[in-house]
This record gives sequence, C-alpha cells and structure tokens, in this order.
Amino acid sequence: MSTPLNPASEEAVVAALEDFISKMEEAAPNLYDRNYITFFEENPSPKNYGETADAEGKAAYEARLGQPFEDLLQNMEGARWQGEEESPYTGKDLGITYPVFSAETLVERANLAREEWERSSPDERRACLVLALKNFEARFFEVAHATMHTTGQGFMMAFQAAGPHAADRSAESLLLCYDAVTQNDTASLWEKNMGKITLQLEKTWHTYPYGISLAIGCSTFPTWNTLPGVFASLMAGSPVIVKPHPKAVLPLALAVACIQDALDVCGFEPEVCQLAPDTAAEPLAKQLAEHELVKIIDYTGGAAFGEYLETLPGKILFTEKSGINAAIIHSVQNLDEVLGNLAFSICLYSGQMCTAPHHILIPAEGVHTPEGLVPFDEVARRYAAAVDSLAQNPKAGPFVLGAIQNKATLERLGLLKGKGKELLDHKQVAHPQFEGARILSPLVLEADESQYDQIAHEIFGPAVLVVKAQDLDACLAMARRMAVEKGALSGAVYTTDEELEEEIAYALNSAGIPVSFNLTGPVYMNQNAAFSDYHVTGGNPAGNGSIGDVTFVLRRFFRVGNKFGNLRGRNQ
Amino acid sequence: MSTPLNPASEEAVVAALEDFISKMEEAAPNLYDRNYITFFEENPSPKNYGETADAEGKAAYEARLGQPFEDLLQNMEGARWQGEEESPYTGKDLGITYPVFSAETLVERANLAREEWERSSPDERRACLVLALKNFEARFFEVAHATMHTTGQGFMMAFQAAGPHAADRSAESLLLCYDAVTQNDTASLWEKNMGKITLQLEKTWHTYPYGISLAIGCSTFPTWNTLPGVFASLMAGSPVIVKPHPKAVLPLALAVACIQDALDVCGFEPEVCQLAPDTAAEPLAKQLAEHELVKIIDYTGGAAFGEYLETLPGKILFTEKSGINAAIIHSVQNLDEVLGNLAFSICLYSGQMCTAPHHILIPAEGVHTPEGLVPFDEVARRYAAAVDSLAQNPKAGPFVLGAIQNKATLERLGLLKGKGKELLDHKQVAHPQFEGARILSPLVLEADESQYDQIAHEIFGPAVLVVKAQDLDACLAMARRMAVEKGALSGAVYTTDEELEEEIAYALNSAGIPVSFNLTGPVYMNQNAAFSDYHVTGGNPAGNGSIGDVTFVLRRFFRVGNKFGNLRGRNQ
Repeated sequence: MSTPLNPASEEAVVAALEDFISKMEEAAPNLYDRNYITFFEENPSPKNYGETADAEGKAAYEARLGQPFEDLLQNMEGARWQGEEESPYTGKDLGITYPVFSAETLVERANLAREEWERSSPDERRACLVLALKNFEARFFEVAHATMHTTGQGFMMAFQAAGPHAADRSAESLLLCYDAVTQNDTASLWEKNMGKITLQLEKTWHTYPYGISLAIGCSTFPTWNTLPGVFASLMAGSPVIVKPHPKAVLPLALAVACIQDALDVCGFEPEVCQLAPDTAAEPLAKQLAEHELVKIIDYTGGAAFGEYLETLPGKILFTEKSGINAAIIHSVQNLDEVLGNLAFSICLYSGQMCTAPHHILIPAEGVHTPEGLVPFDEVARRYAAAVDSLAQNPKAGPFVLGAIQNKATLERLGLLKGKGKELLDHKQVAHPQFEGARILSPLVLEADESQYDQIAHEIFGPAVLVVKAQDLDACLAMARRMAVEKGALSGAVYTTDEELEEEIAYALNSAGIPVSFNLTGPVYMNQNAAFSDYHVTGGNPAGNGSIGDVTFVLRRFFRVGNKFGNLRGRNQ
Repeated sequence: MSTPLNPASEEAVVAALEDFISKMEEAAPNLYDRNYITFFEENPSPKNYGETADAEGKAAYEARLGQPFEDLLQNMEGARWQGEEESPYTGKDLGITYPVFSAETLVERANLAREEWERSSPDERRACLVLALKNFEARFFEVAHATMHTTGQGFMMAFQAAGPHAADRSAESLLLCYDAVTQNDTASLWEKNMGKITLQLEKTWHTYPYGISLAIGCSTFPTWNTLPGVFASLMAGSPVIVKPHPKAVLPLALAVACIQDALDVCGFEPEVCQLAPDTAAEPLAKQLAEHELVKIIDYTGGAAFGEYLETLPGKILFTEKSGINAAIIHSVQNLDEVLGNLAFSICLYSGQMCTAPHHILIPAEGVHTPEGLVPFDEVARRYAAAVDSLAQNPKAGPFVLGAIQNKATLERLGLLKGKGKELLDHKQVAHPQFEGARILSPLVLEADESQYDQIAHEIFGPAVLVVKAQDLDACLAMARRMAVEKGALSGAVYTTDEELEEEIAYALNSAGIPVSFNLTGPVYMNQNAAFSDYHVTGGNPAGNGSIGDVTFVLRRFFRVGNKFGNLRGRNQ
C-alpha cells in the first residue's frame, strides 16, 4: 500500500491506543453488567466527526468507482481482478475490481502467517486490533457510503450499523476474548501435601486457536454481522480469511485494509487477515470451508448454505441463518403508538433486517385498549394505514425504507400474494436524490393461523403478514413453534397485564426468542445494542453465533497445560 | 426408596451444605489460578473416613451381589430387570440387575421433569447438587469396591479416582457452571442518551439449557469420566440421562441414586437425573443420542462410536475418544528414576488409562545422562527390566496392575506381537486375594519410526512400544503427527536442556498435547488433577470435552435477554 491509512505519528498512535485500551479495561468488569457501553460515536454530526468528514468520506468512496481496490497488503501474485457490485440507488455497476485468489492460495498464506500470530501475547494482539478499530473509525463515512451503495441501506443506518455499531460489537468481541484468553493464570507453583513429602510441580497454561478462521459475509450487513467474529478469531490468535458477499465487498474490503494496516504497523504479517473476494459464477465459500486447515467458520446468510456448513465434520461453526420473527399484540396503552412502532420496524431497510417482524400475531377478538376492545379487522386495517403513512411520507419514507438490495427479493415476494387478503399493496416510492432507486413500500397481507404450513416461512423484504390467532396462548404457541421449527432472531409482545410477562417470557425465551415488551417511541425490536443484547441466542435454528455471549469467543481456542518436575521458578 | 441415603437430620444437612458452599465460594476466584484445590479427601485412611468406613462399604457392595438394584427413585413402570457385570478379579458375574427402560420412556420422563428444573434458580440447583456430592461422599467406599469389581482397577485407584477425584472434578464443573450461569447480571436499567431525550429500557437476562442431556459412560472410569459432565449439565438446568457401560453400571447407579436422593430432598422430581442401563445385545446409546429432544451429549469411549456421534446434526457433543500418547526421552539426570517413572505409568491399571504412554520415543543415538550417552538398545533393555521388576514385585505388582477389564483386550494385544522385537513378554501375575484374577504384566516391544503406518495406532492394555527415531526432532514430529492424525491425551518429555523446553512445548501444545516435563518420583504423566489440569484439550481428535475448561460448561446453555419499554424497576 502506498500511503498509511492512519497518518498520525507513531507517538500519537501509541497514545491513542493506550487511552483506548485503558477505556476498554475500565469497561471490562461492566461487560457482564450489560449496561450501556459504547466506544464509538453513532451520531455522524460534524460536532463528533468534524465539518469535512462526510464530504471527504463520500469523495473517497466516489473515487473508488471504476477502479481496482488497491489498499490491501496482500501478496498480489496469482490475483484475477474482478468485481460485480451494483448500487441499488443508481442501478449502476460500481465497477470496482478486487483481487480474486484460489482457495488453496488463501489458506496457504494464512497458514504461513499463523505461527507468529498464535504465539504472540494477548496484549500484543489486543494493541494491534485496537489500532485496527481506530483505523476503521477514521473511515466511518467512506464505509457508510460504501455500505449504502452495496446493501441499499439508507445513509443513517449505513453509517451507524456499518461504522460505530459494528466497531462497538467488534470491541465487545475483542474485550470478551481478551478476558477469556487471559482469565486463567499462565503459570503457578502447584503444591500437594502427600503426608511425608510435599509434591511440587510448576505448571504453565497456554491457549491456541483451533486453526484458520473463515468469515463469510452477507449482502445486507457486511460489517455488522461479520466483524465481531473476525475480531474474536484474531484475538484468539487465529488467522482469518474474510470472504465477502460478491454484491457487498467494499465495506469489508475497507475493514480488512484497516486490519492489515494495523498488522503491518505492529510488525505482523498482514496476511494474518486476508480478503477473499469471489464471484457469483465461481464462489469460493465451499472450497474454503471444506479445507482441512480451516477449523473455525463464521457465517451469515441463507439457511440452505448454513445447513450445508453444519454437515461439515470437525468445524467450529457460528451461524446467523434466518428466522421467523413474530410480534404479538395483546393489550396496549396506546394503539397508534404501538402500530406506529411496528410499522417502523417493518419499513426500516424495507424488511431486509434479520430481526424485522414479518408476522404480526393478533388474537381473534382483537386488542384490549383503555378505550375498549379494538376488533382484529380494525387493528389490521390501522396497522396497514400506519405502514402506508410512513412509507409515503416523502420526508421519511425513502430514507427509512432504503433500497432493495437484490432484484430477486421482489420476485420472491410476488409468490406471497396469494397467501392472504391484501390490506396494502406495494407502491413505488421516489427518492429525492436517486431517480430510479429500487424502492418499494411494504405489502401487508392478512392471514389466519390455520394457514400455518403456508405462512410459517421466512419472509425477506418489504412484506408483512397480519395473522389472526385464536387467543394470546395461540399467538404464543405459533411464535414458539415457528422459532423451534424454523428459527427466530427477535420477538415482541405488547401486553398491559404485567402478571403475564413472566410466563410469556419463559414460553418464548426457552425457544431462544428474546422478547421486546411494549416498545414504543424511538426504540425497535429490530435493534440489538453492543454490550447489552445477545444477537442470535443459539436457542433455535436461526443460528448459534450469539454475538455478545462469551461462548462466541471461547470456542475459538483451546487451553493446554504443561507440568514441570524440574522446578525453576516460572511463576516468579 | 425405603431409607434416605443421608441419614443426617435436615438441620445438619443444611449446615453441611452451607459450609460446603461457602468453601466453594472461597475457592471460586482461585479456580482461574488453577492452583491446588480439593474438597474431598483422597486418602482412605480411618483418620479421614472413620474406622468402620471400609468394612461397611465393602459389606454394602457385597450385599448387592445377586440382587436387583433398588435405590433409584425412578418410576419403575415398564422396567425390564437386567444386568451383565462380571468381576475381573473373581471372574464371576455380579448378578446385580438394573431396570432397563426404552429410550422413548426415558426421554419422555426427562422432558416431563424439565421445566421445573430449568426454571429453578442457580442457587437452588447448586444447593441440591452439593447435597448430591455429599451423599456421594458418604458412599466412597462402596463406590470403590463397585468400581474395583467392574473396571478391574486396584483398590487404591478405585477409591481415589472413582470417589474423591471424581467428586472434585464434579465440584469443579459445578463451580465453573454456577459461575458462568451467574456471571452476567440478571436485570438492569439501561439508559441511552439520545440528545433531546434519554431512552430508558429495563433489560433482563436468563440462561436456558439447550435441551435434555445424555451422558454415555465407559467401562474403565465410569464415574471419573462421566460425572463432571453430568454435574455441569444439571447445573446448567438440563435433565440428564446417564447411560452406563453395561459392564460398569454399579458405580454410576450409586452416583445417580445419590443425585436422585438430593433432588427428592430438595423437592425436585428425581427423574431430572435418570439411570439408563442397557445390555450389549440391546444397546440404547444410539436411540437416545438420535432423539430430537436430546441436545447435549457427553461421551467417553471408543473412537468409532464417537465419530458416529460427531455426524449427528444439531447436537452439542463433548467427547473423550482415544489417542496415542508418547513419552520422549532425550536427556536425563537419573535414567533409572525416569525409566521407573515411565514403567509405573504403563503398569498403572495395566495400561488401561486413556492417558498412559504406550509409545516411548527415543533418539537413535540414545539418551544423554551425566555419565555419558546411554545407547538406545541399553535404554530399551533397562526400561523393559524396570517394567518387569515392578510387575513381578509381589508387594506392588498386582495392586498397581489391577486386572484386565475386558477379555477382548488380551486378544487385541495378541495382534501387536509381530510388530516389533520382543523385549519383554506378558507374564501371569498372581493376586494374593483373588485367585485367577485376570492379570497380565505388560508386553514390551521395540520398533522403529519407519514402521509408522504399522505402529501409529491406539494401544489399549498392558503393552508398550519403545520406538527408535532419528533424533529429538523426529521424536517430536512423530508425537505431533500421531496426535494430529489420531489424537493424544497426554505427553511426556525428558530433557535436561531447559532452552529446548519452549519450542518442545509449542510443537506439542499446538497439536493439543499437554506435556509433562521431567516427571520423576510419585507423580505420573497419566494423572490429571481437578482445578488444575485440563483433561482432553480439544486440540486434536482425541476429543473436545475438556474437563476443567469453562467451555465444557458454557456450551450447555444459551443466554437470552428481554427488554421492557414499560419501566417498573426490575433492577431495584
């Protein structure tokens, strides 16, 4: 790479790192309190990032269009330059090309970089990875524009989710893994009184990663879903091969460049973390996953490929596949506030979040409110109206909806239409900055719990089913059954009867569904905060890569101990 | 059950528990120091257990012979009473029968007991399980005789390994799991400053086990290998089905009876922990393991069945299969001490320990000693002599060797004979108390590293290969290759060159082999201490159930959180 990503002098870098690490250490005990902790500023205002940050980030993104991506510090021998990203906003190819390597080359290079990295100290690795996060922070605006034009997210979500939130979840993984790796003492004089004699042994303990890691990214949240696993594996001492989705390479390419730069600055081989771009025609994920030296796999994407990965023997696998997320409306204080909140949840990024509620379950008798029982039909109608109103609001709609990442999403939604009574059809929505952006407001259909086999499927994109079920128990049973059979990543329940909360929570939690009770205002069931919300609990088939849980970092390495009969004071 | 296992009054029980729990809490921070901690007295002297304990335990064991085992608190509907244990000391059937149930019945009953157990508090579960351990402690001598006459272990090993050591490793699992389950706060007021407003949510967090647990025991260490997983799963809130090896049921039957008694006393359904005996003709392990409600499996036993279990989708599996453990002799202070130590390691329980060294690797030039280089042939000959001397010593041999658990072991060893030059043949060894006990001293063969394909196999029972390799590097390469390909559970290296230790440790540790350096005197590479030595590191195919590692307990449960928009001070 020609110029360093972080132009600060070495001293300034060292000072910034020390400051950041001391903040992290301060936060570490609170990790397990799971209170509000954040290291990165989610508000992109000039106050936080400077007057010129947005313009510079946008310009940096635009300068990449039509060019080869040359920021990686990988050996370019054997590279074929390819790229097939397309902006859902402009409809145009980005024209950026990336170096494509064979799976064998990537694994070989990771293996060459392995020993030095796995033998480095946890403190050395942590310092290097903190520097990588600081590098990444300096690029949040460029990453935001890159994310917007690959995933279709609105700018604000693209900034927050791909930048600060992804960095916070990565810091969380880093902290959890550092804590896990350093939790046990590394050496001890071990004494056992055996009556006449006291047996003395010196013991030492070490951690080693299981092998090379592979991180497979998705097209909708390339950094948020992928970087926590990458940072966890790197902290565990494992080299990582990052394989982005061919339609959303740039955000991860920027992240990997930031990591490689930090590795280089710290004197490590940059190929400890490699970018492994591929194409739809010649995908690499299978070859990489099946390679015998690849032992740890992080995967975000469709269920079918995830289930194939689950069949591979001898791999440690963390998945986020897909699920059916239900919101149940039983009784409310203010129906319009609730329907507005749930309308936002499905409009946000056009129902392309893995945590969006595509199944709204309502008891047949309707919803209890302070003004009396509102019949099911009226609730359904008012919900559809709330969705329509948000989507068609020119000041909010296009920015909340974002754009549809993949054309195929719309084709799949076409198949949904026959499954229920149409309460609201898709409508075109214009974007003030991007004429012809791929935006469509959500379809709202009404269905009945008796149609279970027809409707208990993942819905991805702008569409939602309002489902009539016999009563609250039937709503809970259906939400639970969908989770147990197909997975679920989120759940919401609205009830004013606080005495029901414990049983409702148990019914859904024990099927691995986290429950958001009675959310209104600017907080949504779709959202998962770093240092506080587990993402993917592992309790149902939606996946097992529970970001924020210690298990997510611990399973990447093993512990091994040595004993020494010849004492020489290793523990001094 | 007619009489309670623990005859103490309720008050005395409560006091004992409080005392034990406070000791455990005191020990908890030190768990991660991995220093010497023990809760149970390993020395069976009358000072520790009372003058009559041994005689009473022996009498209790003998009273069971020829009788149905009626101490379980399980529903006996549908039981078929069967049993096929045989004492390797007397050659006679024990004649004890156990209630055999269908897999479906066992899983159904576990599932009925599930909800109450998984919803109990961690403190309730811990108190109940501590009581179970205290119940078990009261039966250490009966368990010792039961273990001796099913596994063939000598009395001292049967007492220590099956009683106090198994109980200590169970306490370790219990403590680690309690710590993991309670590590995170359970509720918090979560506040996020959003500029104009401060967002407030109440959050709660819970843990739930993945499902029903199955623990599959082996015939050589029925309690030591099985109980740590049983206690970990129970502490995680999972009901456990304990399926003993049909040739070693009694030790686990006694343990399960102790657990059921504690469950009963604490007001839980005793079928939270069920014994699931089976027979060689109609094994139950496969049906139980494949059941969709069984999610967690602990397995100790042969590699073939372990590899089949690894193919089952959707299971969380902890294994101890088998390995090839090497001892490497490079340079020593006192050759006779070293050879004596390694002779003991292979004689101890006749090489039926999964951690015994069956492959002694020695550089072709021989071993460096203060008196000069001792040629390979002489080292091999003196090692065989050390084995012979220990085995033929009438005051030590039969007690250290114990008896051969399974007749088939001797048949398999017959196949080994052609593979190398015979340095020492098997000899019959008489036992002063048991005429005709199945005891045979170890066979010692000499082989060469060039025979790798022929000799790189697990050897189980009284036999050992002394292997000539080119030099120290060749010894390390062979030990490492055997571990990577076939697994290894232990390793030993003798070298006086301390500068080599770090590289030797890395070479073997990174293949998941713990290394014992320069052990002499009464401490052996076979031994793994609770609260200090990981058993099965996970770093090679020998297994992944690393007893003592946090991962061994954490993977049994998932964490799930709820958010409440309606604040009401859950965290107060």
